[in-house]
Amino acid sequence: MPSRRDCANAIRALAIDAIEKAKSGHPGAPLGMADMAEALWRHGFRHNPANPAWADRDRFVLSNGHASMLLYAVLHLTGYDLSMAEIKNFRQWGSATPGHPERGLTPGVEMTTGPLGQGIASAVGMALAEAMLAAQFNTPEFAIVDHRTYAFCGEGCLMEGVSHEACALAAAWNLGKLTVLFDANGVSIDGKVDAWFCEDVGQRYAAYGWQVIGPVDGHDGAALDAALAEARADTERPALIICRTHIGFGSPKKDSAASHGAPLGADAAEATKRDLGWTAAPFEIPEDIRAAWDAREEGRAREEAWNALFDAYRAAHPELAAEFVRRMAGELPADWPEVSARLMAQARGADAPEATRVASRKALEVLVPALPELVGGSADLSGSVGTQTRASMALDTASYAGNYLYYGVREFGMGAIMNGLALHGGFIPYAGTFMAFSDQARNALRLSSIMGLRVIWVLTHDSIGVGEDGATHQPVEQIPTLRMVPNLHVWRPCDDVETAAAWRSALQCAATPTCLALSRQKLPQIPRDEAQVEAIARGGYVLRDCAGEPQLLLMATGSETSLAVEAAVTLNARGYRVRVVSMPCAEVFDAQDEAWRESVLPSSVRCRMAVEAAAPGWWPAYVGLDGEIIGMKGFGMSAPGSVLFERFGFTADNVVERALDLLARHGVKAR
Amino acid sequence: MPSRRDCANAIRALAIDAIEKAKSGHPGAPLGMADMAEALWRHGFRHNPANPAWADRDRFVLSNGHASMLLYAVLHLTGYDLSMAEIKNFRQWGSATPGHPERGLTPGVEMTTGPLGQGIASAVGMALAEAMLAAQFNTPEFAIVDHRTYAFCGEGCLMEGVSHEACALAAAWNLGKLTVLFDANGVSIDGKVDAWFCEDVGQRYAAYGWQVIGPVDGHDGAALDAALAEARADTERPALIICRTHIGFGSPKKDSAASHGAPLGADAAEATKRDLGWTAAPFEIPEDIRAAWDAREEGRAREEAWNALFDAYRAAHPELAAEFVRRMAGELPADWPEVSARLMAQARGADAPEATRVASRKALEVLVPALPELVGGSADLSGSVGTQTRASMALDTASYAGNYLYYGVREFGMGAIMNGLALHGGFIPYAGTFMAFSDQARNALRLSSIMGLRVIWVLTHDSIGVGEDGATHQPVEQIPTLRMVPNLHVWRPCDDVETAAAWRSALQCAATPTCLALSRQKLPQIPRDEAQVEAIARGGYVLRDCAGEPQLLLMATGSETSLAVEAAVTLNARGYRVRVVSMPCAEVFDAQDEAWRESVLPSSVRCRMAVEAAAPGWWPAYVGLDGEIIGMKGFGMSAPGSVLFERFGFTADNVVERALDLLARHGVKAR
Repeated sequence: MPSRRDCANAIRALAIDAIEKAKSGHPGAPLGMADMAEALWRHGFRHNPANPAWADRDRFVLSNGHASMLLYAVLHLTGYDLSMAEIKNFRQWGSATPGHPERGLTPGVEMTTGPLGQGIASAVGMALAEAMLAAQFNTPEFAIVDHRTYAFCGEGCLMEGVSHEACALAAAWNLGKLTVLFDANGVSIDGKVDAWFCEDVGQRYAAYGWQVIGPVDGHDGAALDAALAEARADTERPALIICRTHIGFGSPKKDSAASHGAPLGADAAEATKRDLGWTAAPFEIPEDIRAAWDAREEGRAREEAWNALFDAYRAAHPELAAEFVRRMAGELPADWPEVSARLMAQARGADAPEATRVASRKALEVLVPALPELVGGSADLSGSVGTQTRASMALDTASYAGNYLYYGVREFGMGAIMNGLALHGGFIPYAGTFMAFSDQARNALRLSSIMGLRVIWVLTHDSIGVGEDGATHQPVEQIPTLRMVPNLHVWRPCDDVETAAAWRSALQCAATPTCLALSRQKLPQIPRDEAQVEAIARGGYVLRDCAGEPQLLLMATGSETSLAVEAAVTLNARGYRVRVVSMPCAEVFDAQDEAWRESVLPSSVRCRMAVEAAAPGWWPAYVGLDGEIIGMKGFGMSAPGSVLFERFGFTADNVVERALDLLARHGVKAR
Repeated sequence: MPSRRDCANAIRALAIDAIEKAKSGHPGAPLGMADMAEALWRHGFRHNPANPAWADRDRFVLSNGHASMLLYAVLHLTGYDLSMAEIKNFRQWGSATPGHPERGLTPGVEMTTGPLGQGIASAVGMALAEAMLAAQFNTPEFAIVDHRTYAFCGEGCLMEGVSHEACALAAAWNLGKLTVLFDANGVSIDGKVDAWFCEDVGQRYAAYGWQVIGPVDGHDGAALDAALAEARADTERPALIICRTHIGFGSPKKDSAASHGAPLGADAAEATKRDLGWTAAPFEIPEDIRAAWDAREEGRAREEAWNALFDAYRAAHPELAAEFVRRMAGELPADWPEVSARLMAQARGADAPEATRVASRKALEVLVPALPELVGGSADLSGSVGTQTRASMALDTASYAGNYLYYGVREFGMGAIMNGLALHGGFIPYAGTFMAFSDQARNALRLSSIMGLRVIWVLTHDSIGVGEDGATHQPVEQIPTLRMVPNLHVWRPCDDVETAAAWRSALQCAATPTCLALSRQKLPQIPRDEAQVEAIARGGYVLRDCAGEPQLLLMATGSETSLAVEAAVTLNARGYRVRVVSMPCAEVFDAQDEAWRESVLPSSVRCRMAVEAAAPGWWPAYVGLDGEIIGMKGFGMSAPGSVLFERFGFTADNVVERALDLLARHGVKAR
C-alpha cells in the first residue's frame, strides 16, 4: 500500500516529466499542491472518471490554471480518458493537454482557466447553480442534486479584484457547499509576496462572512482531511482553507519563484525525484500507486447509485425528471417554437416609439415565465437595464428559490459567475449593466467566448444617447471592439422586432455568448414585411429598398437605423436610388452564405455609407476605401442625448448631406 | 455666523437646484455627503481656489462621481473659478459642470470619475506620488512636498474589484497621508445593500492593514472632525473613515434608492428645503454662508507661505528647485534630445534577432537612468515583460526611495494607480503585463485616454507567438480593439529601432497614453536608411519599396513585418512590384497629412494586403473591399509559437501564396 505522499509524488513526477519534455510549463505549483490534490481527490471527491458529464458530480476548478499538469496528472491517475500519450504531448499542437486547462479539450476539465481569479469566481457561479438547481428539483425523498464545488487557487487569484467581487457574493448567498483551497506558498512571479501581498487573507474572508480554516500544513494529509471535513460540516458558509505550502516542493528550487514558470532542468528534475524517493522511470507510474489512485470502480458505483436514485425519482416525478434532463442538456423547452412566436408577435404589435432596453424588458416578460432556466440579474442597475421582470423573483438565500440575482456593482464578478452558472448546466444566465462598464467584465466575456458558453449580456445605454451622464458613461469603442471578440455575437437592434429577434438568437445559439446593445432613448418602430422579419435572423438585411440597382448602400444599426431610413426617403425624393441595410448583428451576417451577403450588399455598388454612433473602425469592412462612415471620432460629452445626437452629426439631415457628397464623389447622378 | 449645518445645506440647496433645472442628475449622494464635505473642505483641506495647479495642494477625488454636484457646489462656494452660471448650466452642452466630474473641464476637479472604484484606486496613486516626490525633493529644512490625499466613496466603489486591488497596495505601501471617507448609507441603486453587500468593511480594510475609523455619524461635524484628526495623526497607515449617512438627507426620499439617480421633483425639492430650513431662492446663497465658505483668502495665504518656502528652497537648492518645477510641469529633461539620440543609436546598433520585449528593456536601460520621473512596475511579471532595469530600484516603503513598483497580480489596480501617479504630476508611469490581461485594466486605460494622461503600458506576449500558454494568454482581439480607443496610441514595433521610436513617441506625447505591443519571440533586425528611421515617427512608412508604381501594397506590424519583407523579396524575384509598408502605429499614421499618407499608400493601388497575427477587423480601413488580410479568425491554441505561426498561416510562403492569389484576382501580371 503506497503512502499518501507516494501518491502525491506521482503527480509531482508526471508534472516534472511532462514539463521537461515540453521544455515549457509551470512546475512550482503542481509540486506545491500535490498533497492538497491527493487529499481532495482521493478522499471524498465525488466523481466518475468514465463519465465527466455525470450531472451530480462534484465540480473542481483549478483557478491557478498554470498548475495544469497537476490536474492532468490527477485526471490521468484517477482514470479519465486521458492517456499517458497525452501527458507526454503536454503543450503540443492538437493535444488534450494544453498549457492551461481548456474546457472541451480534456475530459474532466470543467473550465478554462489561466487568467487568475476567474476560476474561483466562476466556482461561485457553479456552487450557486447547484443550490438553485437543488431547490428546483430535489424533493423531500430525492436529493438528486447534491454535490459540492471545490477550487484551488494561489496568491495571484486572491490579489485579483474579481476574487473580491465574487467571494463577497458567495458569502452573501450562503454558498456552504463551496470550498476553496488556497495554496499559500508566499511566492509569486516577482518573488516573495510579502512586499505586495501582505493582507491578512483569513481576516479578509472572515469579513466577507466565509468560514476560514487554517492555516494548515498543505503537505500534511491528515491536517488537510480535517480541514476538508470541517469545511463540509459547515453548510451555511463557503469555506476558505488556507494551506501553507512550499512552491516547488521537493525540488532544489523549493520556495523560490524560479520554480514557477520554467522547467526545472534535467539536473534539478533528477535531484527532485531522488529527494522525493521517486525511482520509477519517466512517465511511469508504479502499479500499486496507480491502483491507489484508480477511482473508476468507486466512480462507477457512485454514479450507478445516483442513477438508481434518479430512476426512482423519475418513477415518482416523471415530469420533473424529464425537465431535469432537458435543463442539464441545455435544450430549450419543447414549446420553444410557440414561445418564440409569441415573442415575435408581441414585438410586431408595438407601434409607439420605445427604447430598445424597454423592448428587451418586454421580451423578457415573455421569456422569463416560459424558460425556468433563465437566471437574470444586474450589476446594481436592475431598473435601468430592464432585466427584472414581473416573473423575476430575487434569490432567497435560505430556500434558493428565485431566478434573479442582485450582483451589486460588480461587473467582472457578475460575468465570471454567469460563466459558472452556464458551465454547471441547468441555467441560461443573463444580466445587465451599462455598456460602458462591459469594459470591467471584458476578460470574463472573453472566457465565455473561448469556452463557447450561452451567456447573455444586456448592455444598455449603448451610445452618446446616454446623454447627461457624459463621456465615462457613453460607450464609443465598446460596440466595435466587442464585435472583434471571436465567437461573440453583438446584436444592436433598432426597434422592438429586432430586439425580439436578438433575444431569440441569443437563446438559440447554445455555444455562443451574446451581447445585446440597447438604447437608453426611445426609437421609432420600423415597418417590415414578413420576409424582412424573417431576414433579421440573417444578421443583416434590406430594410428599405429602391427600384433597380441601388446607387447608394446605406447601412446602420440600432438607434441610427431610423435616421438612415429617414435620409433614404429624402434622397429617394431627390431622385437617388438608395438601399437601407439594417445590420443588427454583423457577425451573424458575415456567417451567411455568399449569395445572401451579395444579395444584401452587391459587390458592384461601391458608393456605401454606414451610420453608427460608435467608433468607426469596424465599418471599413463594409464600406471599403471609397465609402463614408458617420461615427464617433472621439469620446462623448455631457448634455441631453438629443443635443449630442445633433452636435455629433447623427441626424437625418447630416446623413443626407454627407450622402450627397459621397454620391457626388462617385459621380452618381440623380435621375 | 452660520452653523456648520447651514453651510452643508448650501451644498444641498445648490445640488437640488441644479439637478431640478437640468431635469437630470443624482441628488441622493450630495444630500447625504454634504456634512462630510463641510467637515473636510472647511476644516483643514489645504488648497488655494485661485490656483488649482498649486503643486502642494491637498488632492481630493470624488470616487462616487455621480455626486458631482457636491463637488461643483464646494468648488463654487470656496471660490474656484466656477460661476453660478455654470452651476445653472449643470449637465448641458459645453458647460464646466458635466454629469460626472471631468478633469480639464472644471477648475479644481483632479480626476474624471464615474466608473466606480477607480477614484479611490487613483487616489492611491496620488498619495504614492506625494510620498515619492517628497522623498526625492524634500530636504531636512524644506518640506516643499507635504500634502494629503482625500477621497470620498460609496458602497459601489467598495464592491468593485479595483478597490480591493488598489487598497491592498495602499497598505503595503504605508500611505499614511491617504484618507478615504466612506459614505456608508446602506443603499445602492437596486435598494438596501444588505442582501448583496454584507461584508464587514472595517474588518476587510483592517485585514489590508488600514487604519479603520468609525463608524461615525456622517452628519455630525464634530465627530467627523475627530475622525479626520485621528486619520491625520496616523502617518503610517492609510485611513478609512466609515461615515454612516442618510442618502437623500433632508428629503422625503431619504434612505431610499429613489433619491439616487433622478431629480427629486419640484414638490420634494421644496419640502426638502423647508425641512432643512433653507429659505433662500433657488441658486442664491445667503451672504453669511457664502462668507463662511469662502476659502480664497486663506488659500492665498497658504500658497504664499508655500511660495516663500519654495523661494528659500530655490535659494538653497537651485538645481533641485528647477528640477521640481520641470517635473511638475511634465516637461522632459533639457538633455532629452541627447537621450533620445542615444536611445535611437543604441537600437540601430542591434544586429542579432531579439524579442521586442527585450528591445523595450534595452530602451528602458537608456531611459530610466536619464528620466528620474519614470516610475516603472509590473503586474507580477517583471522579468517577462522587461520593465525592471539595472537602474530600477524597488520602492522602499520606509524612505520612499525607489522608482519601481511591484503591483502584484492586479492589472486594473495598476492602471488606476498609474493614472493617479500621472494626475498628481511629477511622474511618468509605465508598467507591464501580458497583453491578454490588458482586458482587466481596460476601463483604467479608457480613463487615461479620456483624461489625456501620459501613461505607458508595456504589453508583451502580443500574439499567438506566446506559444504553449495557449488561448487564454494569446491576444487576438486586443491589438485592434485597443487601437479603437480614442486618444490612445498602440505601437507594435517590429525590431529594436521601431521599439526605440515607439518609446520616444510615448514619452513625447504628453497628453496621450500609449500601449506598446511587444513580442515574446525573437524578431530579426530590419535594415533601414536614415530617412526610414526618421519616418517611423510618422506611424507608417515604406520599409521596402519597388521600382515604379507598386502593384501590391503589403502592410504589416510587429512580428509579421519581417514575413512581409521576406515575401516581398520572393514576389519581387517573381517579377512583381511589391511595396512593404511598416505600420507600427496606425493612429499616428492616420494623423499625418494627406500627402504623407498618399505617399505611403497611393490611393490608386487597390491590390493591398495586410499581415497581422491578430483579429483582422482593423485592417479593412487600409486594404478596402478588394484586399486581403492574413489574420486570426478565432482564438489561438497551445503549442510552441513557431508551430502556431506555421499552422495559422503566418509564414512568408503563405504570404506569397495569398499575395499571388490576390494579384491574380486583380489581374496583375508579373513583368
